[in-house]
Amino acid sequence: MKLSEIPTPALVLDRRILERNVAAMAEALARHRVMPRPHLKTAKSIDVARLVLGGTESAITVSTLAEAEYFAAHGIKDILYAVGITPEKLARVAKINEAGADIAVITDDLDAAAAIRAHPAPIRALIEIDSGEGRAGVLPKGPELLTIGEALGPRLAGVITHAGHSYGARDAAGRAAIAAAEREAVVEAAERLRAGGREVGIVSMGSSPTALAASTYEGVTEVRAGVYMFGDLFQAEIGTHGLHDIAVTVIASVIGKRPDRHQFLIDAGAIALSKDRSTEATPHDYGFGLVRGLGDARNFGTAIVRRAYQEHGVVACDPALAFPALKVGDKVQVAPNHVCLTAAAHDRYFVTDDGETVAAVWPRIHGW
Amino acid sequence: MKLSEIPTPALVLDRRILERNVAAMAEALARHRVMPRPHLKTAKSIDVARLVLGGTESAITVSTLAEAEYFAAHGIKDILYAVGITPEKLARVAKINEAGADIAVITDDLDAAAAIRAHPAPIRALIEIDSGEGRAGVLPKGPELLTIGEALGPRLAGVITHAGHSYGARDAAGRAAIAAAEREAVVEAAERLRAGGREVGIVSMGSSPTALAASTYEGVTEVRAGVYMFGDLFQAEIGTHGLHDIAVTVIASVIGKRPDRHQFLIDAGAIALSKDRSTEATPHDYGFGLVRGLGDARNFGTAIVRRAYQEHGVVACDPALAFPALKVGDKVQVAPNHVCLTAAAHDRYFVTDDGETVAAVWPRIHGW
Repeated sequence: MKLSEIPTPALVLDRRILERNVAAMAEALARHRVMPRPHLKTAKSIDVARLVLGGTESAITVSTLAEAEYFAAHGIKDILYAVGITPEKLARVAKINEAGADIAVITDDLDAAAAIRAHPAPIRALIEIDSGEGRAGVLPKGPELLTIGEALGPRLAGVITHAGHSYGARDAAGRAAIAAAEREAVVEAAERLRAGGREVGIVSMGSSPTALAASTYEGVTEVRAGVYMFGDLFQAEIGTHGLHDIAVTVIASVIGKRPDRHQFLIDAGAIALSKDRSTEATPHDYGFGLVRGLGDARNFGTAIVRRAYQEHGVVACDPALAFPALKVGDKVQVAPNHVCLTAAAHDRYFVTDDGETVAAVWPRIHGW
Repeated sequence: MKLSEIPTPALVLDRRILERNVAAMAEALARHRVMPRPHLKTAKSIDVARLVLGGTESAITVSTLAEAEYFAAHGIKDILYAVGITPEKLARVAKINEAGADIAVITDDLDAAAAIRAHPAPIRALIEIDSGEGRAGVLPKGPELLTIGEALGPRLAGVITHAGHSYGARDAAGRAAIAAAEREAVVEAAERLRAGGREVGIVSMGSSPTALAASTYEGVTEVRAGVYMFGDLFQAEIGTHGLHDIAVTVIASVIGKRPDRHQFLIDAGAIALSKDRSTEATPHDYGFGLVRGLGDARNFGTAIVRRAYQEHGVVACDPALAFPALKVGDKVQVAPNHVCLTAAAHDRYFVTDDGETVAAVWPRIHGW
């Protein structure tokens, strides 16, 4: 099947770009001899996981227990569920582990730590550290770290942090500085726990920007990153990727034309693209996505999805250029603002190796 | 099962509120003796459809061919696919119709009209009219209307318009004015086609705001509206609903607390809530959702999801109030900004009749 024959809207994955992005990250991490634990919250696909893991590693990160169940059912055992656990969810974790997986959970809460320790199944837990993002985690220098460590007792398996604020940096130096602070925070937390006599096997950090930018991982055992696999417009704006490194796009059909308004309509709207506006405050505001001709065959200048209704995208063309010679039914490709959210609406990837034909169809999961 | 026992995040539907919203719309339309053709793009559920249709009507509107297939498979025949058709999609429409449905399509494009007429299956088509929104449609007074009517020939079944700009009005008088213009535009288009000797059976208009506000539907045969069923924060802000009329919420678990920052974390983030920011420019900016205690048992003052990461929602509490006595694992409910997009991420509704227990689980579909 040709890409131009796929029913629209649909998600297209360019395997050549994915492989290039995966190789770039592997190279960055190999310099530091640190274990990658790729985050599969964006991919949600065993086929992507196999490509990323390259048959040699089997440690992954997930963002939902549905992902944990899915990857465990496909034989991946070492799974880190990197969203704060609640006591109620422990039973589901235990059930997946009984079937052969070994999911570790994370917490920054004393009551949750006590519940983990009290649970009949020996579930491993990491303490979440706030290395500056301010979203979750205990401070590396604070008293809660040690109290939670004590509450976890033999369930304590390590410490984890995520410098999500690294997405706010706008150059490699800024990312390197955040990566350094991220590393220092999580290593300090590990050392404080060890000074109190606790074993801390896992020292986990990572975000795509800091994974690509760190100058050292001393004291860190593993690095988590995920969105780097696919790239998106936001990552292009913050400088971790180029526009040509975006592996996942949405293929859409032209469903109407309004030359008088320099706009055309496509059948990819707020569900197929998401309403993410990550590029709103970056140098280029790409609206809800950047529109290109299929297979880069046609360039419309800077054509941007300016409005996103549930199933309609309104594409604004450059009024200085002639209105593109498009027919209703013609196909275009939309590069996403934030690929994690765009991909979330789709059930499968149409994989291409040449930008023209479909080489494979890879299912992806969703929900919780 | 209690609502508090549902694995989170999950979508909760309060049937009492749904029934009230449906009754209010039925009353508004009954005054005018106009046929409702409810839009099921928000509900995407045969169970909701049955409640809305009340066993007496069978005409619906859909936004995707996946919805058309689903509702046709459940026995609904009279289906309007209200997004501009492409020639490629006609084969799929014809296939659904062969199985017993009668899907009508819409177009504002001469080439698409010619393709509809040339298609071997006799697919009915409506001409889309722009009544002021500027998204799609031909102008009611323009020459394209008659050219497309001629191209469709015997396939012409009617005219359709959608005054989506009615969501920009901020009071009933503004909505009534837009409803009047919407009606005038679509009726004028019908009359121009009739003056040229064409039969125009269907004169279709509607949006939730104009459906509730019109003073007359003279010349209109049917009214489409959908989001009114569920309500959301945006509709509460523009005045078509009250906050107490929001039938669909997301139930979430507390997964972390940061009293020092007056914030807590929930396991409903950008996927479970969507990144829609419809209330950004309304009198109250509700961020990514308004948080309440489960079953309204607890009020946190104005607690708002201020940041939405993929699986984390950061809830900002009123710093003037004492930090709420929440434990990790406690449940909260989040009223959505824009229910169409929030619901889109979820596979099912947990239906309640009392705000405490689950009375039914209704599946919903997604994708294209």
